[in-house]
Amino acid sequence: MPITITAFEKSPDRGAGLARDTRVRWALEEVGQPYEVRLLSFAEMKKPAHLTLHPFGQIPTYEEGDLVLFETGAIIFHIAECHSGLLPEGPDARARAITWMFAALNTVEPPILDLSIARILESDKPWAEQRLPLVKDRVRNRLDQLSRHLGDAVWLESAFSAGDLMMVSVLLRLKPSGLLTEYPNLADYVARGEARPAYKRAFAAQLAVFTDTSTGG
Amino acid sequence: MPITITAFEKSPDRGAGLARDTRVRWALEEVGQPYEVRLLSFAEMKKPAHLTLHPFGQIPTYEEGDLVLFETGAIIFHIAECHSGLLPEGPDARARAITWMFAALNTVEPPILDLSIARILESDKPWAEQRLPLVKDRVRNRLDQLSRHLGDAVWLESAFSAGDLMMVSVLLRLKPSGLLTEYPNLADYVARGEARPAYKRAFAAQLAVFTDTSTGG
Repeated sequence: MPITITAFEKSPDRGAGLARDTRVRWALEEVGQPYEVRLLSFAEMKKPAHLTLHPFGQIPTYEEGDLVLFETGAIIFHIAECHSGLLPEGPDARARAITWMFAALNTVEPPILDLSIARILESDKPWAEQRLPLVKDRVRNRLDQLSRHLGDAVWLESAFSAGDLMMVSVLLRLKPSGLLTEYPNLADYVARGEARPAYKRAFAAQLAVFTDTSTGG
Repeated sequence: MPITITAFEKSPDRGAGLARDTRVRWALEEVGQPYEVRLLSFAEMKKPAHLTLHPFGQIPTYEEGDLVLFETGAIIFHIAECHSGLLPEGPDARARAITWMFAALNTVEPPILDLSIARILESDKPWAEQRLPLVKDRVRNRLDQLSRHLGDAVWLESAFSAGDLMMVSVLLRLKPSGLLTEYPNLADYVARGEARPAYKRAFAAQLAVFTDTSTGG
């Protein structure tokens, strides 16, 4: 059954790989599944046709026959369940890998998103400068804990999993802030993720969209 | 295999049911699984013994034989996978229910947590009053979308699932703000969740901890 995902026609990060379709592309590349991409403008994302697929009017979505999914975590979990390569086989190891998916999305990403909001959406507000250190310290608090847990391990558990795919993707959002460089073991962990051939293919594919649509090609 | 979860010895919400162990208790009650609770003080949560179980030093954790899980979403998903009653049987319907779990935790909860941060942690900051309407409007944006999607349906998909358990739990955090009352269909949806016998048992159990430990009983 062919797989179709949606992505930004023109990514606001200019192809830096931070839009969430990159996470789904990466997962599909890890398990070797081809996919089609339907590009959407911001206006199209808020129209009824897309809201039927994604109630929150975002990208990516995932279509496979009659199945329509939204929410990156759910899409990646579905890919990981249907194809081998992203979740370990033993039930306990599998549950641990899934734990890290949720930890990335519900414990580590929220303060990182708050930092993006503070740095971008609220940058012109009168409190912007004074509030920023507070927001950064909340991110550091999570990074301290994650860094301590990871230690000198290669991945979060014994082998690369969808949990690492998600955690690396979430941490990549920190690159513009410079915060990641305060934690050498986390910076190395992210670099290991970026060095995976599947990540490189996913990154190149999302960058090509930006390059092509920017030049009208 | 006996199940042990951790919870606050003295919940900061004074037994209002907003601490995340309530979500896990609710899931265990829905599937009819007994469980033990180990209570932790704030000091104990930051000690090595607990950090071994939960790298981010929070509650709840979940222990079942050799399996140790943290992160509420992962714990509830594990319970839903191991016992019937929280996920539909068809693979597509199951993937949709899981989608709502992730949507609750990664799309709807983050702005709601930001509102709690603004109202509690940053309430004494010079920007508190001026910034609050902005934070509330970000919550309203998600509630608008969710309310439009839910319409007059009873649950998010055709039957109650772990997705509803998570979404109702996330929306319950809005009660002190009064925002939920702006969306009658969402308020009714939350009330349907609270009316479930399993939720009532979970709520009573967490309240009993607060009552008992507060009176030294």
